[in-house]
Amino acid sequence: MTRSQLVDNIRRNKSYLCIGLDTDARKLPKHLQSSVDGVYEFNRQIIEATKSFCVAYKINAAFYEALGSKGWEIMERTVGLIPDTHFRIADAKRGDIGNTSSLYARAFFETLKFDAVTVNPYMGEDSIRPFLEYDGKWAIILGLTSNPGASDFELQPAGSALLYEQVLKKSSQWGTTENLMFVVGATQPESFKRIRGLAPQHFYLVPGVGAQGGDIETISRAAIIKDFGLLINVSRSIIYASMGEDFTVQAANAASSFQRQMISFII
Amino acid sequence: MTRSQLVDNIRRNKSYLCIGLDTDARKLPKHLQSSVDGVYEFNRQIIEATKSFCVAYKINAAFYEALGSKGWEIMERTVGLIPDTHFRIADAKRGDIGNTSSLYARAFFETLKFDAVTVNPYMGEDSIRPFLEYDGKWAIILGLTSNPGASDFELQPAGSALLYEQVLKKSSQWGTTENLMFVVGATQPESFKRIRGLAPQHFYLVPGVGAQGGDIETISRAAIIKDFGLLINVSRSIIYASMGEDFTVQAANAASSFQRQMISFII
Repeated sequence: MTRSQLVDNIRRNKSYLCIGLDTDARKLPKHLQSSVDGVYEFNRQIIEATKSFCVAYKINAAFYEALGSKGWEIMERTVGLIPDTHFRIADAKRGDIGNTSSLYARAFFETLKFDAVTVNPYMGEDSIRPFLEYDGKWAIILGLTSNPGASDFELQPAGSALLYEQVLKKSSQWGTTENLMFVVGATQPESFKRIRGLAPQHFYLVPGVGAQGGDIETISRAAIIKDFGLLINVSRSIIYASMGEDFTVQAANAASSFQRQMISFII
Repeated sequence: MTRSQLVDNIRRNKSYLCIGLDTDARKLPKHLQSSVDGVYEFNRQIIEATKSFCVAYKINAAFYEALGSKGWEIMERTVGLIPDTHFRIADAKRGDIGNTSSLYARAFFETLKFDAVTVNPYMGEDSIRPFLEYDGKWAIILGLTSNPGASDFELQPAGSALLYEQVLKKSSQWGTTENLMFVVGATQPESFKRIRGLAPQHFYLVPGVGAQGGDIETISRAAIIKDFGLLINVSRSIIYASMGEDFTVQAANAASSFQRQMISFII
């Protein structure tokens, strides 16, 4: 998906909401079978119920890998459920030496049909480069994450700035605003203005809203640009809005509620 | 596998060689079927031919993920081929927020029966912690990697040291010498003495020997300690020593040649 297609989809759905399919086989509503097939059925119903309120889905690879090869197969089948109008993100945090990263890129962009994959910048340019070599595909580089551990290295001084700032500054040169995004956690909204200065035109994928405490309005006010440049991810607060038979209704309600907070930012 | 078991195995096999199963379905010897089953058969024969010359096998997850769920299944079956006497490493470079890393740990330590998994330190302590909560299992944290991109961040100043030095210093406090190792690339042997000062008792997993240019003697001289503290990984130079029908013989010869260089360091 190109940037202009993504922006068009945001305008059409009046939403820059991304829904995280962090589907845990051990936490399915009771009436769904507690199995890998249950995960698929849960995802199918969640996507059906929420797709008009969002523009992207983010599949958290860990939840599927925990189920072994059958879980990986459910991930493959879940990507196939996401409509073409929606941006498909593999939240996989990959990154390795160049020839190995090429295989991760093949895994997520060719074998699986994702539009984007989250990648870790620690190993530097050649570990990210293979993800930037596909037309219409994106690397989403970890900048500032939403977890407590962000303070261990990301928020530590590195040269004349903080490490995550160096990452944004340097890695934004490796690609373009058409194939590179950044993860910037919602739990640090006070940093957004400074971050916009470092990567003014890039899209940000913002996790940490909902269960992790960030809120849509604060983030949007601080980070939105003319063609949005923003995908805000919510996982647990939507997909686990109810654990009962009404889980699709409650997920739709939660997604709709997040989406309504975005309307005023979409002109 | 505990540290003392690993050390005993090194003494018994007179080897601290780890063989990397970076098995590319597109590069199998011609007489093997070019398919996922071909990958399994290749791994089976390589393990059988080389197991007396090494103490560990490292499975590079990317090569299996590139084949989709069938590749993940071959990874599962390949782990099952590695004898109990050998240390099983998933080279997967994982790491995410705590609740997600718990699922990666479950994937590699429970669903798959690996002894260790490589992890990326960028996101800090809570992203690594779940990998340290299994008895006899190990997290292998990326310190200094062997690729050109190491100069982008790892080798940049961070506070009073370089970033990878801060990583070693801080993260060595998160676990013990019994559940935490570090990746330290062989292409930087001049750094080994300084690194030993930062994490004097930890095991290092050293990639970069063979195809990437490092050599056994230089590394061993610089980094070995009383109970070794060293696993040197070789992938391509062993498993692709020959692309013909004699590939097992040539892989065994290559593995044996690397192992012979280790004997004088094992007392």
